[in-house]
Amino acid sequence: MKTTAINIKHISGNNIVSPIGFKAAGMHCGIKHKKNDLAILVSEVPANVAGVFTTNVIQAAPLLVTKDVVQQTGKMQAIIVNSGNANACTGKQGMKDAYLMQEKTAEKLGIAPELVGVASTGVIGEQMRMEPIVKGIQELAPAAKLESSILFSQAILTTDTVTKNTAYSLTIDGKTITIAGTAKGSGMIEPNMATMLGFITTDANIESIHLQGALKTVTDLTFNSITVDGDTSTNDMVVVMANGMAGNDSLTPAHPDWEAFVAALQNVSQDLAKMIAKDGEGATKLIEVEVKGAVSDIEARKIAKTVVGSPLVKTAVFGTDANWGRIIAAVGYSGATIDPNTITIEIGTTKVVENSEPVHFSEDDIILYLKQPEVKIVVDLHQGNGNGLAWGCDLTYDYVQINATYRT
Amino acid sequence: MKTTAINIKHISGNNIVSPIGFKAAGMHCGIKHKKNDLAILVSEVPANVAGVFTTNVIQAAPLLVTKDVVQQTGKMQAIIVNSGNANACTGKQGMKDAYLMQEKTAEKLGIAPELVGVASTGVIGEQMRMEPIVKGIQELAPAAKLESSILFSQAILTTDTVTKNTAYSLTIDGKTITIAGTAKGSGMIEPNMATMLGFITTDANIESIHLQGALKTVTDLTFNSITVDGDTSTNDMVVVMANGMAGNDSLTPAHPDWEAFVAALQNVSQDLAKMIAKDGEGATKLIEVEVKGAVSDIEARKIAKTVVGSPLVKTAVFGTDANWGRIIAAVGYSGATIDPNTITIEIGTTKVVENSEPVHFSEDDIILYLKQPEVKIVVDLHQGNGNGLAWGCDLTYDYVQINATYRT
Repeated sequence: MKTTAINIKHISGNNIVSPIGFKAAGMHCGIKHKKNDLAILVSEVPANVAGVFTTNVIQAAPLLVTKDVVQQTGKMQAIIVNSGNANACTGKQGMKDAYLMQEKTAEKLGIAPELVGVASTGVIGEQMRMEPIVKGIQELAPAAKLESSILFSQAILTTDTVTKNTAYSLTIDGKTITIAGTAKGSGMIEPNMATMLGFITTDANIESIHLQGALKTVTDLTFNSITVDGDTSTNDMVVVMANGMAGNDSLTPAHPDWEAFVAALQNVSQDLAKMIAKDGEGATKLIEVEVKGAVSDIEARKIAKTVVGSPLVKTAVFGTDANWGRIIAAVGYSGATIDPNTITIEIGTTKVVENSEPVHFSEDDIILYLKQPEVKIVVDLHQGNGNGLAWGCDLTYDYVQINATYRT
Repeated sequence: MKTTAINIKHISGNNIVSPIGFKAAGMHCGIKHKKNDLAILVSEVPANVAGVFTTNVIQAAPLLVTKDVVQQTGKMQAIIVNSGNANACTGKQGMKDAYLMQEKTAEKLGIAPELVGVASTGVIGEQMRMEPIVKGIQELAPAAKLESSILFSQAILTTDTVTKNTAYSLTIDGKTITIAGTAKGSGMIEPNMATMLGFITTDANIESIHLQGALKTVTDLTFNSITVDGDTSTNDMVVVMANGMAGNDSLTPAHPDWEAFVAALQNVSQDLAKMIAKDGEGATKLIEVEVKGAVSDIEARKIAKTVVGSPLVKTAVFGTDANWGRIIAAVGYSGATIDPNTITIEIGTTKVVENSEPVHFSEDDIILYLKQPEVKIVVDLHQGNGNGLAWGCDLTYDYVQINATYRT
């Protein structure tokens, strides 16, 4: 389902400072013991901004600050990010601290505080230690270099094991447009945002209102279609900054290349979403579930997400067990409209269920297939034309280990 | 919230054959390698019956047969149960096999097939081997003895580690009424029935329609308020057989002791539900979540279930980590109406959050508390008068181990 419009190119090795006019930095300021924990992303000029935020009713202070920037001004020129402390459930002091991060960053860059977003990720319910952060903000030296972008990607991580970056380019109005993104997972990953932070940069020229529309569409198909453990966090956000420096005519849904732009944005988002799912806490495998023949695309995605989120399916994939009974049971409790008698299930390319009944297959072949790092499950309901994809990961001993001892 | 009406007594050591006129048996027929796998429960006379069944759209053959008995006739005199094979997703052959179990049981007992229920639990999607079952049905020797009831409780288990039994008595119209139950868990345990089978017997005199009403009320507060992993199974059911042999006046909501009867039924259901949660796959601890001050009881239960079902809360309890951030995050994504600023959280009797902000507490005391086999979390929303309870268990290495290798 990834768009392969001829002029959209994946540009490997590229990153959030590849679009014209973006700089980044990352460093260790002292919130964490050793790892990098403070990062900044800056645009040369104020960028039009769009954002999607957690649906959790409990929302962290930095998220409230950034939401305000996105929704009130529609412009953002920089975002300051820390890991190690989520600044969530920290009351008035937490709000003060988030505003202080905004203010100190604005001061350093010589721009208005209303142009600065703030993002935090880490433990909930501990007050921030602001000294190292304030000091760190002074020391951050944003640059348009690959190393700087790598430091940014590292400094936003919590239990992630790898950095996550992707970039695409396309041609609009004869100008080369670049869209790039970086993100962090990796527990509490579930629809409607989770402890997930995503930062997407582009030099495209596009008004905030249209950028917001494109981001919303794309988010449902990508970031909101992954799940690690069903927990939704207080801090999640994905923001896109579009600084217009590529010089194309302003993009709107009426522009002939609108769909190509949205497709490129979707590619960036899907790459990041899959990287997050694959790097889920303790995960050894990426699971992709495709649902076909559903009543609608929305129902198809709902079923796909239910299957990929089932702890029993996740443990079966971990154990290389072709336990399709758990897959069909998850289809059945998804809450979607289904005919219980017409379901086909394939694991990889092996059909294991037809008309909701078992068919003979080679257990050995499937065990071999399930040992791969990427596993695909296809469910066909034979009811309509609805299609959907969702991604997740297996549930392993390491997930338990990581989360039983997170704070200690 | 357990009713302690003066005339309701817990009778320890009692079991499903304690009510007058019930007999049971259990044996190894050969579906499983070694463990008991076939069981029967019989009433001397046709009993009025009520039942609640899985909400999964994919429903196993035996469940369809029993649903028919309960809904069409309102009477049941016996139920035949096997473990080791769920007879789910087995198509027409599966239906034939379930009817054959019904028929052979009826034949053996000399009663009409319409009076016989069927229940199965185990692997999904494998055809039944009927020879050992048909032979076993002949050999089962139901008796009103404790040993027989223990054999029944054993034969219905899958990954459960202990049998689950409870019984209460009360006096109605000068007659002693006994209500007893047995159940099995222990994965796929989640609201709205899961791979859970519950069998409740009583000698009370009560019409099916009123028994169904009482069971529905009680189920929402008990069996539907537990969760192990959020997976809902194809086979779950709880049935109550009331054979009237105690000789009380027929119970209706107008009877002065109606509420006492419902309370006793609730006690039986709650005991079994908690035993199932505590014996969840790989569990080392029972977690009880109480939510107070919600907008309604229904919302309170919804929040309680969300918290007790959060994989991050479950792993934190396993790791004796007082990670209340995960508790408040789960409250926030429960979908219930909450004020994000007025939440109090207690772990055991230690307050850890007030007005949604951290309060100082002794980590050492909480670690000690979290090492107990039963852990209580209390959330007060300070919004209304809604109260609710839910039960679950911790998420452990053993859960992963059991489910990664279930079929192999």
